[in-house]
Amino acid sequence: MACQNCDFLGKGDIIYNSRLWQIALAPEQSYLGRCYVTLKRHTGDLADLSSDEILDFKELAENLENALKKSFNATMFNWSCLMNDAYQKKKPEPHVHWHFRPRYKEKVSFAGRIFEDSEFGHHYSRDRKIIVPKYVQKKIAGRIRKFYDKD
Amino acid sequence: MACQNCDFLGKGDIIYNSRLWQIALAPEQSYLGRCYVTLKRHTGDLADLSSDEILDFKELAENLENALKKSFNATMFNWSCLMNDAYQKKKPEPHVHWHFRPRYKEKVSFAGRIFEDSEFGHHYSRDRKIIVPKYVQKKIAGRIRKFYDKD
Repeated sequence: MACQNCDFLGKGDIIYNSRLWQIALAPEQSYLGRCYVTLKRHTGDLADLSSDEILDFKELAENLENALKKSFNATMFNWSCLMNDAYQKKKPEPHVHWHFRPRYKEKVSFAGRIFEDSEFGHHYSRDRKIIVPKYVQKKIAGRIRKFYDKD
Repeated sequence: MACQNCDFLGKGDIIYNSRLWQIALAPEQSYLGRCYVTLKRHTGDLADLSSDEILDFKELAENLENALKKSFNATMFNWSCLMNDAYQKKKPEPHVHWHFRPRYKEKVSFAGRIFEDSEFGHHYSRDRKIIVPKYVQKKIAGRIRKFYDKD
């Protein structure tokens, strides 16, 4: 799936497609289970969401948080809707998407790696970037999908 | 207004009280018009919001963004729901609140000051902290309230 206006959909391992949103794992996994939650319709402002879209987001946020608690014992979650990068262009084409970062009080061992949230209790770091190999991305996405309750 | 569990409500100049949320200006104004949007009920997880609460938030986000466009010609907006600080305590008592940061392509002159978003098009800075004097906070809040459509 792609967006006709920009390149925001169709990247990364898909966790779940609802009717209105797509959840995909980010390749950058400094916070284990980091995902993008992207609106399928092209619009550039959170305030432009329909009631259907914001209600569907709420349900999906609940399911995603639960899946991360079950998958990796995530403690809590950071959600942000920023869209700054789009405004570096002369003709900005922002596309509503959420950055979802699970945060962890404890270290997690998974796929032969240790994931540690060394900033737990503080704002997420943007300096620490951990792009994990494709096969690790697939394993992480597979585990989250397994616990993602679609009903 | 205060929260019975924590100290999250009742700080800063109030922009608007809806039935379910409170908007208050943050004293830190490195992004002119920065506000906290705080749930009146005490709960610590975005996923715990009721349908009423998320729909009311959506309406209020729309009104607040419009007010900032009219007040200071804001270009776009960053929204984040983090709640990290609460987890520095042994018994965390997170309280759902949004960080609202208007972002500006152009400088704004107001109350005898120049407000400049030198990171426009990029993630907000957390190093640059501009706590403005109380009388400036009051002027900023007054201007936003004037343009905040309550109907």
